Amino acid sequence: MSFLHHIQICNRWPAERFLPLCIAGQRFGWVTQAFAAVLEGFGPPFALTQGAVVFGAELPTAVERTKAFDESLDALVEKAGAQAGHNFRRRGELYPVVRRWGDAPVMLMDRGAVASFGIRSFGVHLNGFVRDKSGLSLWVGKRALDKAVAPGKLDHLVAGGQPFDLSLRENLIKEAGEEASLSPEVAGRAKPVGALNYLTYWENQIRDDVLFVYDLELSAGMEPHPRDGEMQYFELWPLAKVMRCVEETDAFKFNVNLVLIDFFIRHGALDPERPDYLDILSGLHSPLD
Amino acid sequence: MSFLHHIQICNRWPAERFLPLCIAGQRFGWVTQAFAAVLEGFGPPFALTQGAVVFGAELPTAVERTKAFDESLDALVEKAGAQAGHNFRRRGELYPVVRRWGDAPVMLMDRGAVASFGIRSFGVHLNGFVRDKSGLSLWVGKRALDKAVAPGKLDHLVAGGQPFDLSLRENLIKEAGEEASLSPEVAGRAKPVGALNYLTYWENQIRDDVLFVYDLELSAGMEPHPRDGEMQYFELWPLAKVMRCVEETDAFKFNVNLVLIDFFIRHGALDPERPDYLDILSGLHSPLD
Repeated sequence: MSFLHHIQICNRWPAERFLPLCIAGQRFGWVTQAFAAVLEGFGPPFALTQGAVVFGAELPTAVERTKAFDESLDALVEKAGAQAGHNFRRRGELYPVVRRWGDAPVMLMDRGAVASFGIRSFGVHLNGFVRDKSGLSLWVGKRALDKAVAPGKLDHLVAGGQPFDLSLRENLIKEAGEEASLSPEVAGRAKPVGALNYLTYWENQIRDDVLFVYDLELSAGMEPHPRDGEMQYFELWPLAKVMRCVEETDAFKFNVNLVLIDFFIRHGALDPERPDYLDILSGLHSPLD
Repeated sequence: MSFLHHIQICNRWPAERFLPLCIAGQRFGWVTQAFAAVLEGFGPPFALTQGAVVFGAELPTAVERTKAFDESLDALVEKAGAQAGHNFRRRGELYPVVRRWGDAPVMLMDRGAVASFGIRSFGVHLNGFVRDKSGLSLWVGKRALDKAVAPGKLDHLVAGGQPFDLSLRENLIKEAGEEASLSPEVAGRAKPVGALNYLTYWENQIRDDVLFVYDLELSAGMEPHPRDGEMQYFELWPLAKVMRCVEETDAFKFNVNLVLIDFFIRHGALDPERPDYLDILSGLHSPLD
């Protein structure tokens, strides 16, 4: 294990295993060869044309595409699981389908399908830290054992996917309340400090993810508490303990490692003289096509 | 002018105008078509082979390559200026020629030739900032009018190219003393906070640059002073004034804009909801080949 190893895990992309997913004449996602065969058999609104999966060729608006996708979803879940090894399920939360951050979505898609269709997804990640005479400490969460993704793994103070109908800041404040019982006033003090991204094929999921990163300095007396059952508990760890845990283990959720490494860099805890420093940095910021 | 415009200026790369420069069987730089013709005419240790400029094919060691290059340099300076429009000159400071940060150099090259041969160069950039009740302020330097690059432009508190024989930290402390009269004790408190890079063709120079970025928090009473004549003076500007100046003008040296934009991002002054946020971030971190 090493810092760079976590970054490499988030940038594994065997391109030959995927076909583009096209909507309204542009690529918006990726689909495995096996899933493409399922979608071809499914028929309209899916078609296989010139090496690409085309969705909704006859559907001219975002509203119609969203509706048609939603109506296909339950049947898709069954076929995808049985025939292509995707165990996705309806999540009841809509994500925007966009090529570029800030664009109007070409449609909305249930969160549960996003990783099977290789749609780019966005999320907010909040580092909660405490500064005292001995240096920095970070709040570390332990994920619940019934989470769909990474059960029992270590996590940030707050993290969440970005639905279509909230701003990043609204989403951060909502998640901070639900996951860590932080008041809107406290969570609202979080500072946006950058973003990182990766494209990876991980446990049969395509993750084309952009993570917006926030830092929140908390006073020593302020303790977060789990509220909605997504976390088991929070602990305050000295920075050196977090760094050792990231460098030597895979105890943190796979992508949380990246946000933490970015924190180590921004707070001066990684030495730029190390020969892998630039590989780590460029691995946190892949080109977005 | 806009934040993104500064980033685009640093990423202009008309690839068809360049040939690779190969040393010891690998590409280490780029050469314009016009300069390649000059080098072909120059003859050994230069040759033009299969669409690449090859340096020192007969020279098996870094020491021999360094010596042969140095012996060719004065003649090269004359021919390059007259025939290919490169006005480089001997600087008397040796830079390492490497493909990858931390590698042993394949040779050393006079700093003055680096931008004509498209060699990757490394530098240190120091943001000096003051935090008080009204927020952040940044120390801004005014470059001397006789600087070879960007005379009279605005600059950081300290910045300097990275020679082969110092560590980044040693170089930063040396430059901070020379340019801003900072003591080693003060400069040594600077925190490494990341790096950014770009590849651009700018005023007949190839800039394949990696900038290692440092932040140094200074107390309100602490004033830097120019020492070696590279700077005319320093002024403390409120962050909003610096941001406006970067966004609306080209008063800062071209690449200093990038380091400042990175500072704005890391300190929460750029809103991630803006649609160009990810373009800005990915423009600060191009892939390093």
